[in-house]
Amino acid sequence: IETKLPKVGTTIFSVMSQLAMEHKAVNLGQGFPDFEPPQPLRDAITRAMSEGRNQYAPGIGLQPLREQIALKTERMYGHKLSADTEVTVTSGATEALFAAIAAVVRAGDEVIVFDPAYDSYEPAIELQGARAVHIPLVAPTFAVDWQRVRDAVTPKTRMILINSPHNPTGAVLSAADLDELAAIVRDTEIVVLSDEVYEHIVYDGEQHQSVLRHAELAARSFVVSSFGKTYHCTGWKLGYAVAPKALSAEFRKVHQYLTFCTFHPAQVAFAEFMASTPEHYLELPAFYQAKRDRFRELIKPSRFKLLDVPGGYFQLVDYSAISNKDDVAFCEWMVKEGGVAAIPLTPFYEKAPGTHLLRLCFAKSDATMEAAAERLCKL
Amino acid sequence: IETKLPKVGTTIFSVMSQLAMEHKAVNLGQGFPDFEPPQPLRDAITRAMSEGRNQYAPGIGLQPLREQIALKTERMYGHKLSADTEVTVTSGATEALFAAIAAVVRAGDEVIVFDPAYDSYEPAIELQGARAVHIPLVAPTFAVDWQRVRDAVTPKTRMILINSPHNPTGAVLSAADLDELAAIVRDTEIVVLSDEVYEHIVYDGEQHQSVLRHAELAARSFVVSSFGKTYHCTGWKLGYAVAPKALSAEFRKVHQYLTFCTFHPAQVAFAEFMASTPEHYLELPAFYQAKRDRFRELIKPSRFKLLDVPGGYFQLVDYSAISNKDDVAFCEWMVKEGGVAAIPLTPFYEKAPGTHLLRLCFAKSDATMEAAAERLCKL
Ligand SMILES: CSCCC(=O)C(=O)O
Ligand SMILES: CSCCC(=O)C(=O)O
Repeated sequence: IETKLPKVGTTIFSVMSQLAMEHKAVNLGQGFPDFEPPQPLRDAITRAMSEGRNQYAPGIGLQPLREQIALKTERMYGHKLSADTEVTVTSGATEALFAAIAAVVRAGDEVIVFDPAYDSYEPAIELQGARAVHIPLVAPTFAVDWQRVRDAVTPKTRMILINSPHNPTGAVLSAADLDELAAIVRDTEIVVLSDEVYEHIVYDGEQHQSVLRHAELAARSFVVSSFGKTYHCTGWKLGYAVAPKALSAEFRKVHQYLTFCTFHPAQVAFAEFMASTPEHYLELPAFYQAKRDRFRELIKPSRFKLLDVPGGYFQLVDYSAISNKDDVAFCEWMVKEGGVAAIPLTPFYEKAPGTHLLRLCFAKSDATMEAAAERLCKL
Repeated sequence: IETKLPKVGTTIFSVMSQLAMEHKAVNLGQGFPDFEPPQPLRDAITRAMSEGRNQYAPGIGLQPLREQIALKTERMYGHKLSADTEVTVTSGATEALFAAIAAVVRAGDEVIVFDPAYDSYEPAIELQGARAVHIPLVAPTFAVDWQRVRDAVTPKTRMILINSPHNPTGAVLSAADLDELAAIVRDTEIVVLSDEVYEHIVYDGEQHQSVLRHAELAARSFVVSSFGKTYHCTGWKLGYAVAPKALSAEFRKVHQYLTFCTFHPAQVAFAEFMASTPEHYLELPAFYQAKRDRFRELIKPSRFKLLDVPGGYFQLVDYSAISNKDDVAFCEWMVKEGGVAAIPLTPFYEKAPGTHLLRLCFAKSDATMEAAAERLCKL
């Protein structure tokens, strides 16, 4: 059988987590916290199961959960959403990204993505018979060069896929960036897909510039977020997409045949918890900023050079003082010999620039960070 | 925005469940039990959450769960599977069906489906740029006319999608049917996708003829099943696909970017429960046969004519003694005026034959069946 995805192997996240397990390494690779979701959330799932919420939820998601998402969006970004027609609950942000792409991208279309780009984007685009057009972010801050975007737009451009806070670099878009984007898509049919799974993890007092703050963009965008990243439960696979009614209608057509709905008891639990505890996500910037600063402090004595981290829960480091290996080889060596798993950046590039960078996840307990740092400082 | 799925509206299951809710009708429409999954399963989910199993599971599914699936398959069908390379856990059977289709069907291909066909098949095929070729099953037993299949095969045929026990009709394939299918696909590149979500619900002492009993077919087939249907928890959205290594490799490439993984605590729970309680699925035929027989008994006094039910948990009935309306109109009338929600068959046909049939779900408690029957007998 000939493959439809010749460029795709096993995702680097699975590969590195598997290696971490085999070599008993501290796993700072795949992005997940090693601490637990709030106890009331877990209790609410148990309660929902005992109250018989074990059959299909509505395909678009539980009404009270969609309402909480709309409330949160208004509170955070001043953007009013219809829970009925503009919010759809998904099996994680991954499904939401796939469904948004499948809903609007057609064979022959082009989708602009920014490298390094999260590794699920391109396969989802290619499965539509479309082509990802890669524009490199500009190191060392990984800013977008909007002139390059303007130059890359063609009549075939169907979508521009942005991601802020950015994975893997931690870069964040500014309000001025959104204005640049709006000017480019104005008077075109281009849809924006905005991956905002780290929306609540922005540092140093900055505000997350959701496209939902930008009325003109909001009117033509899918915005995707993740309960897993926000509530420390990546393994529960709950996310959502919001979009104007017409886009949501197309999204829902695809979603209903991709997964139909997602784990019902968790939807009950999040609807309750979001209503009772909005401070959870309001406290996340401070919560993660303490982790970021602690982790940076811990690895300062190492030979890794630390890049800035404006958002997200990943630290990029330059390892050129330690090794000349390429990043994949270095990460393989490090997980085996150094006892710490990281994620190399090459898999997120069409044409990797050959810089010596890797990504470390600091969504970890102090003990984990200390154990990792002790090892990293020995390299 | 122009739709990619012009034939698709909201799935009939959501439409009828919504109407049932609005009109406080007894819901025998969408296929889900109104009784609970086993208590030990729910307890095991709670335990898994408290033991910290809240982050990503391996994308392909938890190793012990894949091993239990392989064990069950060997026990039921005498077919040995590699848990490592041939079993993949998914977010319900719906995702498994979509991923199998997306993994091997290309633009321009043809996929043979049998009408009435479950409504997620065709949109999944069309999103690949491929075409569903519809072959009607032959009433009143809804048997496959294999000569028609032979005639429908072209060089573009990439897949034949079978479903036994069949939804919505309850028809089951025989060993002779599988031999016919094998003869047709022999010496071709055609892949078989076998939707077997009702594999454990076959009546009157008959055996389910899984394609996994048929070595020649098993070597070229995806087989999809559902924990939701087997363990009374359709809202947990756990399913799986098994296929030979090469097909599974392509399947996994797609799956990892569709949903990546599924609710981790439930995977822990099913791995435990399947190991400790294999009698659960062994007792399902008797469990559901009692329900089927009870339901048939209850609606015998009505003016509905009952068709045979060899498998699955749906009763087809002919309502021509009651009304001349088409089936969609009749179901809308019945949910509003009769107080019972059912599923019309027209949405599952390319060209509906205009028979007066509808589908009633009997995966219900005695009280629900009695309440429904009382209403149905008044019509
Ligand atoms: C779905 S596994 C990858 C998790 C993640 O978002 C990351 O590590 O970047
Ligand atoms: C995913 S909702 C439909 C459930 C089902 O399998 C059916 O009712 O046929």
